[in-house]
Amino acid sequence: MPTKKNMDNNWRAVHARRKHDIDSKIPTAWRLPSSLTKGDNVLQVPYESNILTPRELRITEARAVDLVQALQTGICTSVEVTTAFCKRAAIAHQLTNCLAVVLFEEALADAAACDEYMRRHGKPKGPLHGLPISVKEHIYLEGTTATSALIAWADDGSPGDALIVKCLRDAGAVFHVKTTNPQCLMSLECDSNLFGRTTNPHNRNLTPGGSSGGEGALIAMRGSPLGIGTDIGGSIRAPSAFSGGYGLKPSVARIPHGGLSGIHGGMENIIGAVGPMANSVDDLKLFCNVVLDANPWDHEPSLIEIPWRSVSMPEKLKIAVMWHDGVVLPHPPVRRALEETVKTLKAHGHTIVNWDPKYHEELFHWANRAYLLDAGREYTDTMDLGSEPPVPSLEWFLSLAGSSCSIEETWKVNSQRDRLRTQWAVQWRELGINALLCPAHASVASAHDECHYWGYTSVFNSLDLSAAVMPVGTYSPEKYKDAPISLQLVTSRLQEERVLEVMSAIDAVVNPKAEVFKSTAPITLSAVEGWKNEGALGAIRTAA
Amino acid sequence: MPTKKNMDNNWRAVHARRKHDIDSKIPTAWRLPSSLTKGDNVLQVPYESNILTPRELRITEARAVDLVQALQTGICTSVEVTTAFCKRAAIAHQLTNCLAVVLFEEALADAAACDEYMRRHGKPKGPLHGLPISVKEHIYLEGTTATSALIAWADDGSPGDALIVKCLRDAGAVFHVKTTNPQCLMSLECDSNLFGRTTNPHNRNLTPGGSSGGEGALIAMRGSPLGIGTDIGGSIRAPSAFSGGYGLKPSVARIPHGGLSGIHGGMENIIGAVGPMANSVDDLKLFCNVVLDANPWDHEPSLIEIPWRSVSMPEKLKIAVMWHDGVVLPHPPVRRALEETVKTLKAHGHTIVNWDPKYHEELFHWANRAYLLDAGREYTDTMDLGSEPPVPSLEWFLSLAGSSCSIEETWKVNSQRDRLRTQWAVQWRELGINALLCPAHASVASAHDECHYWGYTSVFNSLDLSAAVMPVGTYSPEKYKDAPISLQLVTSRLQEERVLEVMSAIDAVVNPKAEVFKSTAPITLSAVEGWKNEGALGAIRTAA
Repeated sequence: MPTKKNMDNNWRAVHARRKHDIDSKIPTAWRLPSSLTKGDNVLQVPYESNILTPRELRITEARAVDLVQALQTGICTSVEVTTAFCKRAAIAHQLTNCLAVVLFEEALADAAACDEYMRRHGKPKGPLHGLPISVKEHIYLEGTTATSALIAWADDGSPGDALIVKCLRDAGAVFHVKTTNPQCLMSLECDSNLFGRTTNPHNRNLTPGGSSGGEGALIAMRGSPLGIGTDIGGSIRAPSAFSGGYGLKPSVARIPHGGLSGIHGGMENIIGAVGPMANSVDDLKLFCNVVLDANPWDHEPSLIEIPWRSVSMPEKLKIAVMWHDGVVLPHPPVRRALEETVKTLKAHGHTIVNWDPKYHEELFHWANRAYLLDAGREYTDTMDLGSEPPVPSLEWFLSLAGSSCSIEETWKVNSQRDRLRTQWAVQWRELGINALLCPAHASVASAHDECHYWGYTSVFNSLDLSAAVMPVGTYSPEKYKDAPISLQLVTSRLQEERVLEVMSAIDAVVNPKAEVFKSTAPITLSAVEGWKNEGALGAIRTAA
Repeated sequence: MPTKKNMDNNWRAVHARRKHDIDSKIPTAWRLPSSLTKGDNVLQVPYESNILTPRELRITEARAVDLVQALQTGICTSVEVTTAFCKRAAIAHQLTNCLAVVLFEEALADAAACDEYMRRHGKPKGPLHGLPISVKEHIYLEGTTATSALIAWADDGSPGDALIVKCLRDAGAVFHVKTTNPQCLMSLECDSNLFGRTTNPHNRNLTPGGSSGGEGALIAMRGSPLGIGTDIGGSIRAPSAFSGGYGLKPSVARIPHGGLSGIHGGMENIIGAVGPMANSVDDLKLFCNVVLDANPWDHEPSLIEIPWRSVSMPEKLKIAVMWHDGVVLPHPPVRRALEETVKTLKAHGHTIVNWDPKYHEELFHWANRAYLLDAGREYTDTMDLGSEPPVPSLEWFLSLAGSSCSIEETWKVNSQRDRLRTQWAVQWRELGINALLCPAHASVASAHDECHYWGYTSVFNSLDLSAAVMPVGTYSPEKYKDAPISLQLVTSRLQEERVLEVMSAIDAVVNPKAEVFKSTAPITLSAVEGWKNEGALGAIRTAA
């Protein structure tokens, strides 16, 4: 494998060109003065910059479910909402380097078409009429590159829309940005030679998580109300957790997965899942509901025809708590948050039992083996093709590689996984629980290049269970100042409805006044006064 | 690979011992005189032998759905029904060599326990209360061997009940026999060094099909009302078709699959499915309904939680017909049966369109590649371990092997499959059909060692679609005299309800008086007269 030393510097030129492409699409009017681009916690910058109007600030802090309501009833136009999110995404990018593709102009044109549709037909285009949605970079979106942050693939375009994009677009969504992912996607951080490093807006000394790291940072900055991530070891859950958001990793074959760039196409021993990232549980439900309403199984044969079901949970839940996974003890603040949450749940009459993590070590090692069946050869080959060195997080990942497997060994790997899944199912059945509550990660967001354990999330990929994360507080000590603390909820396989229903119940008691930053009061018509949308489109046209 | 010539003769001794084990469990009273063991078509022998009473003959010709009704309402006892099927299975075996394990004594004890349960509790044990069910040999059944017809595994027992067996047993079923399968299970015939060759009771010069060949022959002989088969390339459909029965190959992960002996454990590029074989569509539905009512997904994590759904089909169906697969033209009688069926369907107002088999050749080759990813090494290694030669059908199969794949090549094989599945889905969607009707096989049942094409069935394993076969007539010319002619119906993936519902509709017009041999009138209390069940148990005890 080449190292930074002996490589030519071509990748630096590719990076610089890409960086310029992205940055040049940010209208001058939306550029931050250098005085505002300093500091660790940058969540307040949108308020200090005066780039967004008060109403735009309000719009960008609404939940997706409230926005679609406002869009469908004509309280907001799509151009208005899209402009607000484009502005805030531009700010987010200047502070955290979270964007991989900027589509402001396209999104505003699509938004205008939505508004025109509404004017003409007197009804919305679909359940997501005019709602801006952000897309992780390696997901195909017509007219954009999809590189998995690899230099070798820097110019690779999307052959069309991924099915997930198509479902959301058909429902009326507009796409305003694609967000960064790390080199090869195999990291809970977000660093690459192509895009550079993305930082955490709560504390820029920390990682926003990965691999859907750009989504994590962008959604925390409220630069998008809803994002599409992917997760094969924690890549939705870690960035949602590190950035204080809500994220769902569905079981494989529930949510469309067709149309992603990436290494190891056709490898099925462990498979990633596409899922939503947002600022509320209800937004995750909205995403799933809309996507499954589109009958995606008619288009992607591997999907299972299970429509989004309404589930009824008992009023008093039985929840197992896994205090630690038997491999890496969670940091004290995570432990404390878990204790606090359990106390609150008990106070509300829910039953708590302990979960014995007896299979976790084996499940953790199993996933690592599955990721590296070819000893990482396709990763290194593709990096070699682009004459780029691995970034530190990928270098660490590749250090886990053993020798390459024969096909007979891969079959044994599968059998081992199936045995573990069956053992887990027995343990689950015997406890008779509604969900498992556990840390989302062993710590809060790591400092850059320090995230070297993913066992709290990857085991649920090994098991292919429905798993979601939610914030429960923030952390104060110096190094991790302002880092969100998040927990994870897990149910049986293909029980996405249940995991989110349990999360709603817990959210209601743990985050009774969930306000990630400012007001989340519903948008009203009275707030429309005095705001004009020509300005935003004009600014973009000037910049183009 | 060893050949018959240079091998030691140990496998012959293993075969002889096994043969003796099986045959010795047939009570003397149920043994056929040699005068009755001659002839090609042996379907009439049960009537000529006087081993079964008229009422027992009647019981063995009833559908499973009628039998469970009779058992639950006390019209029959389980001992009575089980005795009848044991007798007829004994006759079937003497004529076709279809049994691998004889469990008459155990089944009659279980049946007596069922009857006792009914007497004590005044209600049946479950929806299959007291119904005898036959089990393909490689499926684990507590207390029996499961060898995949391999000499090396001749003494391998079952570690317990397979989940499918457990579901049926919990529903009240009793298991009276296990049925033969061919060496390594990779054949649409049924021949092995361990069990010898199974023949087709319609014409013993022909194969009963495979790999669930013992089931095919047994069910055709009415030695079992319902059987469990497995299918990775046609192994339920070919024996059902060749033997004039009804068989369903579900999509993978619908019906429990855990607990089978076999080669290539953990291989997932192409996966087999467990499914029912019977003498009516309603019996296939009964099987699925009962099994899915047991929530098997709580025990086998790979199963998808889709309960058995009631589906409503339009009164007038739109059916695509595939006249040939573009690779091997069906024999004229199959073509004629398809024409007749289409004519009948049109006469009943159904819409028929043509299916262009544009992907079939590639799908056929794809399956063969997937079966032999390791170039057949595990097959030959296991045969070597038992110092046995391949039987002719397996020798043919192994001749298809190319070179062994690297893991990267297996991933490409998966991607190719997914591309084909997506292309197929587009074609399906564009036609807007309810089902596809096509030959079950290129011909009727082959003569022994002449079945060298499985493209009409294996492509639907490549595609993982729901597929089922049904009889539509019989054939007369000399070589294939009395061979049943069958057709196949296919729907989208995981649409087992739909494929059987369409089959019911077609069955109603194509086989309006479906009588595979004799009377299928409901069993009535008046027929009980003069029959005593002590005789059967007594005969077995004498033989043991």
